[in-house]
Amino acid sequence: ADVKKIAIIAGDGIGPEVVAEAEKVLKRTEALFGYQFETEHALFGGIAIDEKGTPLPQETLEVCQSADAVLLGAVGGPKWDNNSKELRPETGLLGIRKALGLFSNIRPAFIFDCLKEASTLKPEVLEGTDLIVVRELTGGIYFGEKFRRETANGQEAVDTCAYNVTEIERIARQAFEIAQTRRKKLASVDKANVLETSRLWRETVNRIAVDYPDVELEHVLVDNCAMQLLRRPSSFDVIVTENMFGDILSDEAAMLTGSIGMLASASLGEGSFGLYEPVHGSAPDIAGQGISNPIATILSVALMFRLTFGYHEAADSIERAVKEVLDAGHRTGDIAVDKSTAIGTLAMGQLIVDAM
Amino acid sequence: ADVKKIAIIAGDGIGPEVVAEAEKVLKRTEALFGYQFETEHALFGGIAIDEKGTPLPQETLEVCQSADAVLLGAVGGPKWDNNSKELRPETGLLGIRKALGLFSNIRPAFIFDCLKEASTLKPEVLEGTDLIVVRELTGGIYFGEKFRRETANGQEAVDTCAYNVTEIERIARQAFEIAQTRRKKLASVDKANVLETSRLWRETVNRIAVDYPDVELEHVLVDNCAMQLLRRPSSFDVIVTENMFGDILSDEAAMLTGSIGMLASASLGEGSFGLYEPVHGSAPDIAGQGISNPIATILSVALMFRLTFGYHEAADSIERAVKEVLDAGHRTGDIAVDKSTAIGTLAMGQLIVDAM
Ligand SMILES: CC(C)[C@H](C(=O)O)[C@@H](O)C(=O)O
Ligand SMILES: CC(C)[C@H](C(=O)O)[C@@H](O)C(=O)O
Repeated sequence: ADVKKIAIIAGDGIGPEVVAEAEKVLKRTEALFGYQFETEHALFGGIAIDEKGTPLPQETLEVCQSADAVLLGAVGGPKWDNNSKELRPETGLLGIRKALGLFSNIRPAFIFDCLKEASTLKPEVLEGTDLIVVRELTGGIYFGEKFRRETANGQEAVDTCAYNVTEIERIARQAFEIAQTRRKKLASVDKANVLETSRLWRETVNRIAVDYPDVELEHVLVDNCAMQLLRRPSSFDVIVTENMFGDILSDEAAMLTGSIGMLASASLGEGSFGLYEPVHGSAPDIAGQGISNPIATILSVALMFRLTFGYHEAADSIERAVKEVLDAGHRTGDIAVDKSTAIGTLAMGQLIVDAM
Repeated sequence: ADVKKIAIIAGDGIGPEVVAEAEKVLKRTEALFGYQFETEHALFGGIAIDEKGTPLPQETLEVCQSADAVLLGAVGGPKWDNNSKELRPETGLLGIRKALGLFSNIRPAFIFDCLKEASTLKPEVLEGTDLIVVRELTGGIYFGEKFRRETANGQEAVDTCAYNVTEIERIARQAFEIAQTRRKKLASVDKANVLETSRLWRETVNRIAVDYPDVELEHVLVDNCAMQLLRRPSSFDVIVTENMFGDILSDEAAMLTGSIGMLASASLGEGSFGLYEPVHGSAPDIAGQGISNPIATILSVALMFRLTFGYHEAADSIERAVKEVLDAGHRTGDIAVDKSTAIGTLAMGQLIVDAM
């Protein structure tokens, strides 16, 4: 049988509890559809710092490298915030992206009909919002040379932002291809009126565009995009941008949908391998209380089924189950209007498994 | 008599028409309050490229340098977008900021009660929003070394982001001082979990903070700030951040108020000299039709009165006049709900002058 290997890195904060519910969904998928998954857990982030002295232990990397896909909960927390760079969870996150060649972060942001009210935007503005931010994930200022030096004006810190044509081409092609499967509109975001990397970005995207004549391409400056997301969110289909701009804009886009506790993301490289994780963070303030929302992590499994395994029927089943449970009025605390009726992590997970 | 010299650089697009109305306000202030202004016009931006072959002619710089303050309309437009770097309006903007030592960009974002409906945010979320973004304006990736080089992966572009302690200290002090005159809350925005410049930024802000014990300081990561501006805009008082983050966040903050056609900004250096301009751009699509909104430029004059000249009574008079005209229901096209009743640039300017 075709056994799929999934590396599970639960991480910190609410990570372990939301991942546990997602694993029940994996089990249920095996029973319902006859697929077989082999899961292997590995330490990552703060817990790996505590237990192994590094946020990304070599054995964790090996577990991921020998898997077909990775499911990640969340990492980080105040406990490790003041650590030196090598001992911070974020360093593990940057390290795993680079080591696994995950150059593309796919962040869908859309509205759950039953959660429209959760957004701070007016419902009529949000109506129809369904976009994907494609963020370059292994280049730019995140990975460029960094250092300090003494100057006449005191210490100086330097970060370097670099992009080459090959890096821009591959993310651009991926964004064009995703746009082809959707409403065929691509917004490429840069700051070409100021940055050299943005000018190379824009030239390269324009050159690649001739291979995708069916996709309508617009260039949007990053400051303007931050505004247009607020003014006309539903007019965007696919947004492609570099690492730092993507970090900011994908969070803005997620928040404006009001569904941040519900959104999944995928980090992809060449081939079908991918790392899947909820958009939300490790929420240390509510960790261990059994009240966190497992839906984004469960939907990350559905995204894994679609993008890595091609198990569309099983993905449909998960997404339908989530919708059904929400439509029936069940809510965890983060998305409940009346907090007194909120259910816990386990109950939400079970309802979804039962509805599949 | 104490004659104040004001350099007027009208610029491109709707720049000249909105600046013309602001000049009427200057004249009216002279008549009402006995002040004296000497204005001198200079070419800048696209029009300077066309007429002088450079976006920032030496004589324009000299006019500004010998003035007490500068009033700027707007620059740029599609006509110059594909020019080489030295022949682009934005290059003039970066050049004038650097040459005049304008290291701080002050961008208030608040709600005009009568325009609440213009925002895409729910009124109850916006309620009470009144914040100022203090953006560092002459450092960071905007001004660092930029170049291209050939690599095995094709051409590579590089931008450099640098900040030294002196640059961070002066903008931090200014932000703390502004916060002291307001609700005494300062949010310093960085990406200290990834960038070395952000780590130096945070260390320096923390060190400076001991001199301002009455101001409550929080550090917010830039991606989180992009979200929190949407979720709880009214909780922010003063936001201080580096150049690139400030570009993005100040535009997001302006747009969420729904009042982008109404917001003024100041760019300051050491001493009382300042450059004042509307937050909106040159709007080439509506230029020359006499339908643009002059209010942001008129309010830029009020900001100049406050921050450079200390003419608070005159500033009050302008701001009250604007409020009165808006409360009476007068609207330019950009802020009119019923476009058919919209008035033009000249009519709006005249109403405000009359109401002063
Ligand atoms: C934790 C941080 C390094 C990370 C990033 O900036 O990439 C996070 O914000 C994200 O978006 O995944
Ligand atoms: C035109 C551009 C160079 C400029 C900037 O990014 O600083 C503008 O967006 C602004 O905010 O004044």
